Amino acid sequence: MTDLSPTLQLACDLIARPSVTPADEGCQDMMIARLEAIGFKVERLRFGEVDNFWAERGTGGTLLAFAGHTDVVPTGPAEQWRFPPFEPTLHEGMLYGRGAADMKGSLAAMVTACETFVAQHPDHPGRIGFLITSDEEGPAVDGTVKVVEWLQTNNKKIDCCLVGEPSSTHQVGDVIKNGRRGSLGAKLIVKGVQGHVAYPHLADNPIHAMAPALTELAAEMWDGGNDFFPATSFQVSNINGGTGATNVIPGDVEIVFNFRFSTEVTEAILRERTEAILKKHGLKYQVQWNLSGQPFLTRQGELVDAIVGAIEDIEGRQTELSTAGGTSDGRFIAPTGSQVVELGPVNATIHKVDECVSAADLDKLHRIYLRTLERLLLG
Amino acid sequence: MTDLSPTLQLACDLIARPSVTPADEGCQDMMIARLEAIGFKVERLRFGEVDNFWAERGTGGTLLAFAGHTDVVPTGPAEQWRFPPFEPTLHEGMLYGRGAADMKGSLAAMVTACETFVAQHPDHPGRIGFLITSDEEGPAVDGTVKVVEWLQTNNKKIDCCLVGEPSSTHQVGDVIKNGRRGSLGAKLIVKGVQGHVAYPHLADNPIHAMAPALTELAAEMWDGGNDFFPATSFQVSNINGGTGATNVIPGDVEIVFNFRFSTEVTEAILRERTEAILKKHGLKYQVQWNLSGQPFLTRQGELVDAIVGAIEDIEGRQTELSTAGGTSDGRFIAPTGSQVVELGPVNATIHKVDECVSAADLDKLHRIYLRTLERLLLG
Repeated sequence: MTDLSPTLQLACDLIARPSVTPADEGCQDMMIARLEAIGFKVERLRFGEVDNFWAERGTGGTLLAFAGHTDVVPTGPAEQWRFPPFEPTLHEGMLYGRGAADMKGSLAAMVTACETFVAQHPDHPGRIGFLITSDEEGPAVDGTVKVVEWLQTNNKKIDCCLVGEPSSTHQVGDVIKNGRRGSLGAKLIVKGVQGHVAYPHLADNPIHAMAPALTELAAEMWDGGNDFFPATSFQVSNINGGTGATNVIPGDVEIVFNFRFSTEVTEAILRERTEAILKKHGLKYQVQWNLSGQPFLTRQGELVDAIVGAIEDIEGRQTELSTAGGTSDGRFIAPTGSQVVELGPVNATIHKVDECVSAADLDKLHRIYLRTLERLLLG
Repeated sequence: MTDLSPTLQLACDLIARPSVTPADEGCQDMMIARLEAIGFKVERLRFGEVDNFWAERGTGGTLLAFAGHTDVVPTGPAEQWRFPPFEPTLHEGMLYGRGAADMKGSLAAMVTACETFVAQHPDHPGRIGFLITSDEEGPAVDGTVKVVEWLQTNNKKIDCCLVGEPSSTHQVGDVIKNGRRGSLGAKLIVKGVQGHVAYPHLADNPIHAMAPALTELAAEMWDGGNDFFPATSFQVSNINGGTGATNVIPGDVEIVFNFRFSTEVTEAILRERTEAILKKHGLKYQVQWNLSGQPFLTRQGELVDAIVGAIEDIEGRQTELSTAGGTSDGRFIAPTGSQVVELGPVNATIHKVDECVSAADLDKLHRIYLRTLERLLLG
């Protein structure tokens, strides 16, 4: 492939490296070489088996950090792909490959946006940072969480953070994420007494016992959402009970569920209301809660203004602010007090076979990121 | 072990053969040799991999058949047994070993009862039969079902059938089974639409959808039972839904359930009422029904009278007639028009580690079976 834009070329070079989480496969080296060449100071931060780095340029003032990850999700069956997942392929205007949309295309656009910006403004005011991990698609333990701790230990405070997650729905920049719902998971075990189906009076069927409580949990209105968040939702992802034998009443049933919650409730309230329903139905149970992210929200402010303005400047489009969708590493950065917004390409194919992104969109994303730098740092 | 009664000695000899279903391991040969020695004519009836036999003695009149099985359920971990499961062991009055109660003890008592009876009444009126299989604890396809077909083909009609299943609760003969509930199983698959828990509006959670219907099914009064049967019961044995991932709403959920039903309903009514509830809740579902036995009942009659009288004669005990509990091969014999009653030892340890039976009870069972022969055939 020849005559590619610098953004497309770098995206291809990154996609060619099979950095299935938590592997980085040299992607960060490639980014670091480009950033050091334009004056960034880089700290490589390896925690456990995870490669991360922090890069920074500028002498003072507002710190705008680009955040992202070089790891990708597994390909699934490679033979089901139209093109080999780690051989970046341009076809009818689309760039195919694992990570094209999530989020090596964004990483390339960030780097080339900075290259352009620094070439035009070598002594720009403010500071530019990069917070890059290879653990976003995995347990997310030795990645952004640890880099944020390192930043705090070193008294570095991100003012504005632009996360390159693929936020767009149909057109690049049509949706940005200025917050995310919280995520609270639970594993519930409802206890009964095992027995033979022919002697139900000697047993206590936990599947029968849990059904009315589950009915109520699934029908419950947890809140009405607010201007920024949809209503809190409850979803069961897994339910398993039974010995496999058709004549045995099982001794317990396990139910795994998840709340995606707004700022109208708290995890404590959700736990309390859930357990009140379980107790009301007289269930004998154990529940193990797992908070994987508090909700966060960046209301209007300089970062939202700069990004919304940049999208309007480049695309002539009014962007939609949204807090819908899954979690991202933004949840670890927001608690430091930073404004956090996610802006990236169209997410229709992420985590799927034949992941792809519009080649033209990556160049547009380069220009939007560049315009964001200009609006935020040059004023 | 010396000085054992003939019944105990034969029970030990049978237990020593590890006839885990469908294996017979020579148990039937042992029984056949004893029966032929007292004038029974024997037909060996092997179907598929299952050994069965029919034995008959007498020239005409009422046919009383003893029915039973030589196969046993697996031992489970043999090291958890107090004594090796296939080394019959007398300890503190109890005979230990797999099959001691279910039902090699009964088989031994049947054979020795006939030996005593024939010795005293070599030209007895009526006929005595044995219907023995090695497939009762397994699929029950090539056992009693096929022997009954063979009997019908050969114009042999059992008038009264005494099944040696362990019917007793605390004392031998305290309970006999003069019928069994029907058993209707089903595998229900409730369909939804798979999706991400963060985007529930794009999915349709089948676990949420099924919960109200399951609540209603579990609470439903299917009938009130009658003088002979307890109320029909519905029990879920297995429920499974989910991909294992905690962030995926599954596309379907599978629920396996079973009815034990009285003669107040029919399988058709149960199917119809179940599906009416599923439809009322708007479920998209598939259901696969499996009728494993129609209910049957032997009301008062010559067989019940003979057995009840024999128990009173030998034990001075009023026996309880019951239709509770699991299925047995009686369900295949009753449809031929035969009276069917189950009478065997105490069932407390059947299918468990350390299966055992009171040695004295086996000798009592011998006497009860003998007295039943006398009452029924000698009048």
